[in-house]
Amino acid sequence: MSSEINATHITWHEGGVTRDERAKLLKQKGCTLWFTGLSGSGKSTLAVALEQVLVQLGHAAYVLDGDNVRFGLNAGPKTLMETRGYDQSSATRFGLGFSAEDRTENIRRIGEVAKLFAEAGVITLSSFVSPYRKDRDAVRAIHEKDKAGAIPFFEVHVSTDISVCEQRDPKGLYKQARAAAALGKGMGFTGVDDPYEAPVNPELTIDTGKKTTQEAVADLVAFLKQRGILA
Amino acid sequence: MSSEINATHITWHEGGVTRDERAKLLKQKGCTLWFTGLSGSGKSTLAVALEQVLVQLGHAAYVLDGDNVRFGLNAGPKTLMETRGYDQSSATRFGLGFSAEDRTENIRRIGEVAKLFAEAGVITLSSFVSPYRKDRDAVRAIHEKDKAGAIPFFEVHVSTDISVCEQRDPKGLYKQARAAAALGKGMGFTGVDDPYEAPVNPELTIDTGKKTTQEAVADLVAFLKQRGILA
Repeated sequence: MSSEINATHITWHEGGVTRDERAKLLKQKGCTLWFTGLSGSGKSTLAVALEQVLVQLGHAAYVLDGDNVRFGLNAGPKTLMETRGYDQSSATRFGLGFSAEDRTENIRRIGEVAKLFAEAGVITLSSFVSPYRKDRDAVRAIHEKDKAGAIPFFEVHVSTDISVCEQRDPKGLYKQARAAAALGKGMGFTGVDDPYEAPVNPELTIDTGKKTTQEAVADLVAFLKQRGILA
Repeated sequence: MSSEINATHITWHEGGVTRDERAKLLKQKGCTLWFTGLSGSGKSTLAVALEQVLVQLGHAAYVLDGDNVRFGLNAGPKTLMETRGYDQSSATRFGLGFSAEDRTENIRRIGEVAKLFAEAGVITLSSFVSPYRKDRDAVRAIHEKDKAGAIPFFEVHVSTDISVCEQRDPKGLYKQARAAAALGKGMGFTGVDDPYEAPVNPELTIDTGKKTTQEAVADLVAFLKQRGILA
């Protein structure tokens, strides 16, 4: 494309770019890979490695995880007051904590954002424990029931056994949760004193206790090709 | 790239893909173009046309507007109950209406999402009236004060005169708002009975009463090149 774009070179049609046009021009189909699994199962490691491999291949890919969501879109009341200038009442209403309804809203907002990314043509990798089947099914529905047609949504169960996750315990969270549970002061920590509801029909299952990151990423890339996401 | 990717071809480094790598590999820098202006000023027409032109050039670009946000991420209580299975209490708490605090939260969430898109390397075009300076400045701050460094944020004031907007009145909203105002039943409609606070130092100003869409889009593309967003 010439660098001297001027008005005579610019054309477009009514109604905006279609999904098919976008996929063809970007040489990839937008989709969401929804990684779910216990804390320490390897979700983020896989998502971050896959993102990097895809971007190296020239693909638009992006990881949504606690790092970029918990202090932004889904910030808690304190962050909303301290960094967004919210008063107590707005911060309490819109800020997210860890109650059942807050966790559901947390996953819903992430699901809506993942869907927007996927619609934009991005290969979207979300990495959240997301322990409840109902919440994950709702995110799938957001994608698959879009009024302009289904957006590809793939549930990736990172099924690493809890004994392996607990051995890794990179942030010391299991240790903390076990100690709290022993004192009868539950933290509601998934796998310790809150249930993890495993996916019933995930599109992919990966056990990082049995595969290296490299092998798992190769499987994921092969899966994306097989599903027509990558040309 | 060979279609026979296998584990031996896959490499990555710790810490994930950096912004510079992403920009180089995707041949564009992620940014947010924040279109602001009265209803009927031509924001969405410009954003949708620019998106299409950019995608035709092979760039990842995406419009955030009422169509894809109002019934999803920022849905109202009714939608949350009817399509997301929320009970009354969750729907009332998280659903957005049109009060002052709801409008602020609406723009905040959109700003957070625009920032994520921009960070993902996408040229993000947001199209919302966003009448309050405070709310727009907060979105700018979300971009510019990111902990990993400033993300390019450009305020585009679509400055079309209200008389022109009101003449267009594509959805009959001005007519409705004037009628309501005449009866003393204000709708809080921007430009009629609610203020529009024009940007003080927008990066770009476009008056669609004086420029065609084609000319304006050419200006926007030139601007993106000049700012180093497009290679």
